[in-house]
Amino acid sequence: MTHTPIRFGIIGCAEIARKVSRAILLAPNATLSAVASRSLHKAADFAKSNGFPPEAKIYGSYESLLDDPDIDAVYMPLPTTLHLKWAVLIAQKKKHLLTEKPVALNVAEFDEIVRACEENGVQIMDGTMWMHHPRTHKMKEFLQDKQRFGQLKTVNSCFTFFTDPDFLKNDIRVKPDLDALGALGDAGWYGIRSILWAADYELPKTVTALRGAVLNEAGVILDCGASLQWEDGKKATFHCSFLTSLTMNITAIGTHGTLHLTDFIIPYQEQEASYTASAEPGFNELVTGWEPLPSEHTVTVDLPQEVCMVREFATLVQNIKKKGAKPDMKWPTISRKTQLVLDAVKASIEKGFEPVEIVN
Amino acid sequence: MTHTPIRFGIIGCAEIARKVSRAILLAPNATLSAVASRSLHKAADFAKSNGFPPEAKIYGSYESLLDDPDIDAVYMPLPTTLHLKWAVLIAQKKKHLLTEKPVALNVAEFDEIVRACEENGVQIMDGTMWMHHPRTHKMKEFLQDKQRFGQLKTVNSCFTFFTDPDFLKNDIRVKPDLDALGALGDAGWYGIRSILWAADYELPKTVTALRGAVLNEAGVILDCGASLQWEDGKKATFHCSFLTSLTMNITAIGTHGTLHLTDFIIPYQEQEASYTASAEPGFNELVTGWEPLPSEHTVTVDLPQEVCMVREFATLVQNIKKKGAKPDMKWPTISRKTQLVLDAVKASIEKGFEPVEIVN
Repeated sequence: MTHTPIRFGIIGCAEIARKVSRAILLAPNATLSAVASRSLHKAADFAKSNGFPPEAKIYGSYESLLDDPDIDAVYMPLPTTLHLKWAVLIAQKKKHLLTEKPVALNVAEFDEIVRACEENGVQIMDGTMWMHHPRTHKMKEFLQDKQRFGQLKTVNSCFTFFTDPDFLKNDIRVKPDLDALGALGDAGWYGIRSILWAADYELPKTVTALRGAVLNEAGVILDCGASLQWEDGKKATFHCSFLTSLTMNITAIGTHGTLHLTDFIIPYQEQEASYTASAEPGFNELVTGWEPLPSEHTVTVDLPQEVCMVREFATLVQNIKKKGAKPDMKWPTISRKTQLVLDAVKASIEKGFEPVEIVN
Repeated sequence: MTHTPIRFGIIGCAEIARKVSRAILLAPNATLSAVASRSLHKAADFAKSNGFPPEAKIYGSYESLLDDPDIDAVYMPLPTTLHLKWAVLIAQKKKHLLTEKPVALNVAEFDEIVRACEENGVQIMDGTMWMHHPRTHKMKEFLQDKQRFGQLKTVNSCFTFFTDPDFLKNDIRVKPDLDALGALGDAGWYGIRSILWAADYELPKTVTALRGAVLNEAGVILDCGASLQWEDGKKATFHCSFLTSLTMNITAIGTHGTLHLTDFIIPYQEQEASYTASAEPGFNELVTGWEPLPSEHTVTVDLPQEVCMVREFATLVQNIKKKGAKPDMKWPTISRKTQLVLDAVKASIEKGFEPVEIVN
């Protein structure tokens, strides 16, 4: 990278911001310039315990960070309910925006955010890290292999993790005024994204939530799932939950092959990640075993996936800053589709598990 | 085994009968005594090419085999539509019955078959081989581990295989007058069984077929799925298909652990079989990897699963023949529950994917 590194400011000291701070430090084209919290003390502590460079600035309010002319981009790990207000302000302050997911509470808010970014010529990207893992690109090659994988027909995706009584009572992700989308926003976002990813981002025609969704007393989703149907007969299901053991699977089945992995969001290990490709599988003559066996593929990692994400985002920002490029629309387009499906799942639950048409 | 081996006759020369013939040959308490086909020539060929002992009898009709007093038990690999007629006759002839799945076209027929078996004091078991694999018992131990697995909350099961145009036009499994249940009977049976197995055979309260089922012109199911709900909040989904690549997964998620395997019906290899147990999984401090990692468990196999099945069935028959025991009800009870859920899936598809209550 010959360009000047992109200078990041972080607003909010959420747990996830620690991982992203490290990623900004490790990314070759990014630098950690500032952190803001509503408490100056908390921001200072965060900077200290997360390896911020000595010259990094500490702010006691988000606004003051946004007014800093030496910040190019803002990473926003705030509760979803606050996204609209702060994302629009970030854009108006001409800062590029790396935002935690879900991007917004619904697609109407999403569109307001993206409109503000477009009007101000700033990049927006959501923080779905696994999209940037080199494994993801290798898996996509398999899905696109017409001979070995064939035509995609079915995807099943699952992301669940078990939370304790304290989380279920106090975490922002179970509060209707904070992360109001609950498990659907926090975990289902990944399942929906993985399905869209496998389907080359073709939107489904219909989304039907699965019966048995669990909501808390305030109406926040703790566990749900949905089935998705496409015009061409493709189908998918996903399940997300705060109530069951940590599990993160994708099974994508084509006419000729099957892709499978069990750690798609956070790989088991940082240094390498695997997936299983089963190409034209069948049985031996007496049907007492498989021929050929599925093959396991391991991808070695130079940079952790969140660093790849920051690098990709910073490259797009550099293109705008240095080369006068327009903000890239690939990532917000993918984010918007994820949000559209998420909205449809929520609507289907509210309608008593009736199918909901996706209107783009 | 000190008892005399159980003498098996086979009616019908289906492909699957080759594998079961070998299993009967390998089982320590069973012997291959006769085979019948509507064509004497075909039966003779079958016996010759499947290692039948020289003294085995060859019959040109099913009836003549059933009249043979030197046959204890009959293995019935006939199309489902023929099961009722032949199973009842087998029972009336006082032969014990090992039948291919699905046992019947619906639970009413199932009950007729079982009634005939009860009235004649003969054992019935369906040919769901994986139930008898030693791996299945090891996996059950994990599911029952309250600390490492916790309480079962969700199961996802999938069995699909890709068939060619000839199969889709001519195979008995796409014919309404033969295997009228299509992919639901042939593949969905396993998915339903695996869910019931994981749920300790507690029946779900409600079954809702997933939208997007594929039926052929004659109305036979080629691809479908369903979601199941229990009174206590447990949930499950399964998918079965003739239209997508060979895939056979179970993911059973508890509050504290996850069981996962990708070859549950036919293990990849005959000599050993594996599964993954993830007990109290979580992340490392920065959420850049899992701690602990899931563990892979491999079970070495003394006898192939279909041999274990024949041995188990023959032991039950020996108990009746030699010890005057009553026919065991464990296996037909499990089969009946599978059939009940299968009926409900079919009913839900017919009702336009409305939920169907399971009435036991």
